[in-house]
Amino acid sequence: MPRWAGDTRSRLRAAALGLYAERGYADTTVAMLAQSAGTTERTFFRHFPDKREVLFSEDEQLLAVLLGGVDGAPQGPALGLARAGVTALAQVLSSRRTELRVRAAVIAGVPELQERDAAKRAGWTAALTSSVRARGVPAPEAAIAACAAAGVLALAVDRWLDGPARPGLLVRVDQGFTTLAEVVRGDA
Amino acid sequence: MPRWAGDTRSRLRAAALGLYAERGYADTTVAMLAQSAGTTERTFFRHFPDKREVLFSEDEQLLAVLLGGVDGAPQGPALGLARAGVTALAQVLSSRRTELRVRAAVIAGVPELQERDAAKRAGWTAALTSSVRARGVPAPEAAIAACAAAGVLALAVDRWLDGPARPGLLVRVDQGFTTLAEVVRGDA
Repeated sequence: MPRWAGDTRSRLRAAALGLYAERGYADTTVAMLAQSAGTTERTFFRHFPDKREVLFSEDEQLLAVLLGGVDGAPQGPALGLARAGVTALAQVLSSRRTELRVRAAVIAGVPELQERDAAKRAGWTAALTSSVRARGVPAPEAAIAACAAAGVLALAVDRWLDGPARPGLLVRVDQGFTTLAEVVRGDA
Repeated sequence: MPRWAGDTRSRLRAAALGLYAERGYADTTVAMLAQSAGTTERTFFRHFPDKREVLFSEDEQLLAVLLGGVDGAPQGPALGLARAGVTALAQVLSSRRTELRVRAAVIAGVPELQERDAAKRAGWTAALTSSVRARGVPAPEAAIAACAAAGVLALAVDRWLDGPARPGLLVRVDQGFTTLAEVVRGDA
């Protein structure tokens, strides 16, 4: 049993993913979500402002993992710091493929969710830039490193969710950094 | 006089930018926009589906410039192709700093517009990837090159709009590619 079984917030989240995937996002009401999670609308709104936010409710914790990876990395060049962040995040995401696939499919079907997701990704790249800067890297280098590392992660996640489960996410992220080096050297 | 003075669509666009900047996006109605451009609401809706889309109305032409830059580039490695695209786009954008600054300030103040803008940028990176692939580059390399080049352009545009007008956008884009090479080599 997962450690959070019984946690209302997690039950609401799981119920939302299930219903969005099954009935569609537009056709799922907060009342249905609450009922499916064995709770009330009132409780739902104590946890989430609206049904869209359920899909982004773990972002704060995941962002903390990303930035924690940078903070905890040994001193080094900009891309190494940014890479430590995305690798820490990939580590956490790598055990959640099934849930992430459902989530990605729901988001892909709703323009409003795609926009929100794109904005979140942009915000994460900005936060990653700040973390790398906080390690003493000048602004332009930090921004370019964060953007490249975030791009490598995003592409690895997308391909891992769309394609076969193997190679796993961490291997795909490593391969992405190798490809980045080849592409920037002009070898590819 | 600009070549398109008198063009209703352009007048509506200019009126929108002016009113959004002056009164705020939320407090500007389509009726005000139409009046300010010397036309009617009915005409507005012949050109744009809503007041948000006015801000993104040139995207199709600009995207064509980006992709045209890739299509017209001499054969070469992935990053060179993607770079030809973003350089072509930067060339067109470089004469529009004043208008782009107003637009960026309007977007920065409205979460709904920020989300839309982020989704547009993500869509452009995907389109850039497809263009690079169409030149014979394998998928992972094309995606990484497009993502890196789009990142360099986005950062150059943001800094050029936020900071001083000089160096100009094309110089900033070139500097960005130099920084990218240094960052990926581990020199920065």
